[in-house]
Amino acid sequence: MKKTYLLAPGPTPVPETVNLEMAAPMVHHRTPQFSKIFGEAAEDAKYLFQTKQDVLILASTGTGGMESCITNLFSPGDKVLVVNGGKFGERWGKISESYGLEPIWINVEWGQAVDVNEVKAALDKDKDIRAILVQASETSTAVAHPVEALSKLTRDRDDILLVVDGITGVGVFPLPMDEWGIDAIVTGSQKALELPPGLALVALSEKAWKFADQSKCPHFYFDLKKERKNLGNQTSAYTPAVSLVKGLRAVLKSIKEEGLENVHKRHNRLARATRAAAKALGLKVIAPDSPADSLTGVFVPDGIDGAKIVKSLRDEFGVTLAGGQDQWKGKIIRIAHLGYVDTFDTIVAIAAIEMALKKFGHAVEMGKGVAAAQEILLEAY
Amino acid sequence: MKKTYLLAPGPTPVPETVNLEMAAPMVHHRTPQFSKIFGEAAEDAKYLFQTKQDVLILASTGTGGMESCITNLFSPGDKVLVVNGGKFGERWGKISESYGLEPIWINVEWGQAVDVNEVKAALDKDKDIRAILVQASETSTAVAHPVEALSKLTRDRDDILLVVDGITGVGVFPLPMDEWGIDAIVTGSQKALELPPGLALVALSEKAWKFADQSKCPHFYFDLKKERKNLGNQTSAYTPAVSLVKGLRAVLKSIKEEGLENVHKRHNRLARATRAAAKALGLKVIAPDSPADSLTGVFVPDGIDGAKIVKSLRDEFGVTLAGGQDQWKGKIIRIAHLGYVDTFDTIVAIAAIEMALKKFGHAVEMGKGVAAAQEILLEAY
Repeated sequence: MKKTYLLAPGPTPVPETVNLEMAAPMVHHRTPQFSKIFGEAAEDAKYLFQTKQDVLILASTGTGGMESCITNLFSPGDKVLVVNGGKFGERWGKISESYGLEPIWINVEWGQAVDVNEVKAALDKDKDIRAILVQASETSTAVAHPVEALSKLTRDRDDILLVVDGITGVGVFPLPMDEWGIDAIVTGSQKALELPPGLALVALSEKAWKFADQSKCPHFYFDLKKERKNLGNQTSAYTPAVSLVKGLRAVLKSIKEEGLENVHKRHNRLARATRAAAKALGLKVIAPDSPADSLTGVFVPDGIDGAKIVKSLRDEFGVTLAGGQDQWKGKIIRIAHLGYVDTFDTIVAIAAIEMALKKFGHAVEMGKGVAAAQEILLEAY
Repeated sequence: MKKTYLLAPGPTPVPETVNLEMAAPMVHHRTPQFSKIFGEAAEDAKYLFQTKQDVLILASTGTGGMESCITNLFSPGDKVLVVNGGKFGERWGKISESYGLEPIWINVEWGQAVDVNEVKAALDKDKDIRAILVQASETSTAVAHPVEALSKLTRDRDDILLVVDGITGVGVFPLPMDEWGIDAIVTGSQKALELPPGLALVALSEKAWKFADQSKCPHFYFDLKKERKNLGNQTSAYTPAVSLVKGLRAVLKSIKEEGLENVHKRHNRLARATRAAAKALGLKVIAPDSPADSLTGVFVPDGIDGAKIVKSLRDEFGVTLAGGQDQWKGKIIRIAHLGYVDTFDTIVAIAAIEMALKKFGHAVEMGKGVAAAQEILLEAY
């Protein structure tokens, strides 16, 4: 017998009740029965996004949602400022290049948040920049970029948009779209939304919709104007991913019931507990000044191969965490706090890391990280 | 109490066992465990497609798969011949226009299959045409286009592709990709594959992969070369729709077990039974010479509003069929034979149509259509 635990930064565990919703008999998508489901999901998504704007539901993963922002808001030749501090920042730039935009790269050292002054200087230097493209939470490095501060650079100008990849941000920590003046924000189903991968959610500000009227990038499947029109009839432009939308409605209802503020607090509590545990174990936390509450990244001790630890945790201990990507391959462990993960999942992850480190010959005092985490996790009880 | 029955041309019912597969605990997508699942699904998909080529699995609905063929195979300015005999034929043209291709429309009267001689004449007249874009089964009209005959126009030329929307064709009737020389073929999960919507499957011929090397249409999310490269590692370029891929593996195993030939026979038997029932009831079948085995379309009797019949069937009888779209709104009923639908589902649909027609004042001899269907359905026992 081996029980398994999933604390990777997506896909995240799916609640049993949501699985039951998704396994209910299939319904046809062009019926009043399904329109009601779709309409309720889209309505409750506004609560999640903290916006009065429509939230569009696309049958794709988050990258498709990111692409929809590029192809629906901009035109070939447009200059866009790309905050590149990890794999997903890089992705903004690559999508932009694919459609003939002109990315202006702000390269940020991995593990650091972008310096707002550097962004400001770039915008001051070139008034033709039409967007800041940024991650709320750069999943590859476990860093949160300062979205609120960036929004102050764009919100009072009508010729530039703040476009936020909120894939591991929305439903994790505050990103009040309307209050901050975020112009476009994307999330995906397999993160804080506790669903399998396969849905992207996208919302645009009034300013962004004006950009959409001018955009000349080609697109067909990802057509946000067409989606908005169809949303008026509580449906999507093409066949929606019916079972995932059913699950989305269920999850959004549970998020509303818990209260978004409490959802944020929960993620923050798990993140703080994990950081405290790392500290107690003498593990260096990535980005201690700008950590994302979606996941905690820690450097593995010198002389230990992080990839082997992650593999052992998964295959021997049954605990799936994430390792590092690209330049951080084998160097870090990432522990997610996203979605359907709570106190004792987090304790399991920390205990397993302690045990794996000991197994790999690192001097660890068993239970020391767990104890540090418990002190913080107790807040919830 | 009201039991419900779903016989619409997608989404189709999902087998209970497949729902259980999809509801199993979420697994991380970058693990050997999931790679095995993804790899097996992709391998068994070759059997379904009757090809030695890779079958790529995309997290989108069928329309995304169609778009991937346009943007990965062609370039702005390319002439493509569009067989437009219904809503989905029209979609090929619209996608092509969105990306700056030059569609040459062959407009086919709704309810008719395309005339191969007309296509041949168009190709003879203009040697610059780079593709025939066609539906194997035009779902809006219940017509099968003559894919095999069309393949004879393209297979011996290396400057033109046959691109087939097999969304309601693959797994329904024979479309042997390699044998006929189909260059690109797409299907979606919510049809013969018995899954919820959210996956598109795409395969390309060697000739099509050469076109892909020349293509200049922009794309990022739908990047077939990148997908093929990742398939070598039993994964997809971006996060796969994990639960649907699990379901896909299960369904493909059951299709292999039943045998593709038997799967085709099953669809054909249900289609013939339904056509016989319609005839017995004096209902005119659409396209008697080129019906698709994916669904049967019948014209509603004069003086009866087809939309009201379909609504009554759904809301009162609990039987979801499809009505007509666009020019056929209110004029036809479409009964699907796709996927997880068998003898007694089909009898239910026919019996319900008889009862609804009687309720709406049409003179119907109860059971006459059912009896005609039974004679054919009995073949399976």
